[in-house]
Amino acid sequence: MSRRKGKLFVISGPSGAGKGTICAELLKEENARFSVSMTTRAPREGEIEGKDYYFVTREEFVANIERENFLEYAEVFENMYGTPKDVIMRMLNKGRNMILDIDVQGALQVKSAMPEAILIFILPPSLAELRKRLEGRKTDKQDVIEKRLDKALNEIKLIGEYDYYIINDDIETAIEKARSIVSAESCKVPDKVKPIIKIYENEKGE
Amino acid sequence: MSRRKGKLFVISGPSGAGKGTICAELLKEENARFSVSMTTRAPREGEIEGKDYYFVTREEFVANIERENFLEYAEVFENMYGTPKDVIMRMLNKGRNMILDIDVQGALQVKSAMPEAILIFILPPSLAELRKRLEGRKTDKQDVIEKRLDKALNEIKLIGEYDYYIINDDIETAIEKARSIVSAESCKVPDKVKPIIKIYENEKGE
Repeated sequence: MSRRKGKLFVISGPSGAGKGTICAELLKEENARFSVSMTTRAPREGEIEGKDYYFVTREEFVANIERENFLEYAEVFENMYGTPKDVIMRMLNKGRNMILDIDVQGALQVKSAMPEAILIFILPPSLAELRKRLEGRKTDKQDVIEKRLDKALNEIKLIGEYDYYIINDDIETAIEKARSIVSAESCKVPDKVKPIIKIYENEKGE
Repeated sequence: MSRRKGKLFVISGPSGAGKGTICAELLKEENARFSVSMTTRAPREGEIEGKDYYFVTREEFVANIERENFLEYAEVFENMYGTPKDVIMRMLNKGRNMILDIDVQGALQVKSAMPEAILIFILPPSLAELRKRLEGRKTDKQDVIEKRLDKALNEIKLIGEYDYYIINDDIETAIEKARSIVSAESCKVPDKVKPIIKIYENEKGE
């Protein structure tokens, strides 16, 4: 049988909804790989090329834009960040499932560049609970938290663009659901069914 | 939040592929119900109305055909068998997932009557293995087994009409995959997303 191609799973949702934890769990799967971003920012202490980021010059980054090698990219505080298509395609062709942890805007860009990507929206059980989680982190001031909550609601309004959604009210259940989605997607009947039929036909000597 | 509607899962595949065992496992799920067929044949010893079958007269059966109340029906040895739509719709509206164990021809009829049904094809790992399983049952003569194998190959050729497929080379893995499909389908973003967005909007008092 011809090797099954991998799929790209895009995990996104509001900050604080729990997508990081869910991605980390999905990556424990032997066949899954994390999609590494390309960036123009300088490596920080301990960051490893090809694991944390692909570190490139601005010229290299722009060259990648020009040859349309990004599924999405954005500029944040004068640094460029992007998801390189060639690396992902290579891994998918090897049969690996790729996991991409990204914000909602980025996810929609990916979907438009690669419609076969599978978009999973991680939702908080409520905005009140999201507020509690953000406050619990103690990293953001109150006005930043308010902005994050407004942003969260605006992001949730885009849920119709997604394939799946998971309301993360219990992290174990949410992880189980995310795993189910990855497993079920690998059971989808592909567009080209000939290779499957051929296994059985060849056996019959037809 | 408005109650999530259930989904109809149609489990089919060649005789001997293992769909019965997989259905039985799926039905252990609290929210799942077996789709009970309607038949004109007489109840056998111990069969319970509404559990094993809905037993009806030929006139009642024909009346159901006329009001287009079957997702599929067929005549087997002068008895009529059919899958009543009204019962299934009622259960789906209650939020139950319905499990239907049916042959490939029936499954395709269901899909055409109800395109939102989810078709899962259970495949044997090989025709040689299917032969071994059929021979192991000791219920069929050799010529019947040959016919079943020919039929199996013809059924497999229809896999393109299905949504998912599971190659049952290990029953535990196959059951896990079937469970994943049911779980993932319940995470699908519905066509109407307003009710989901409303939960969060109402909270913000918008």
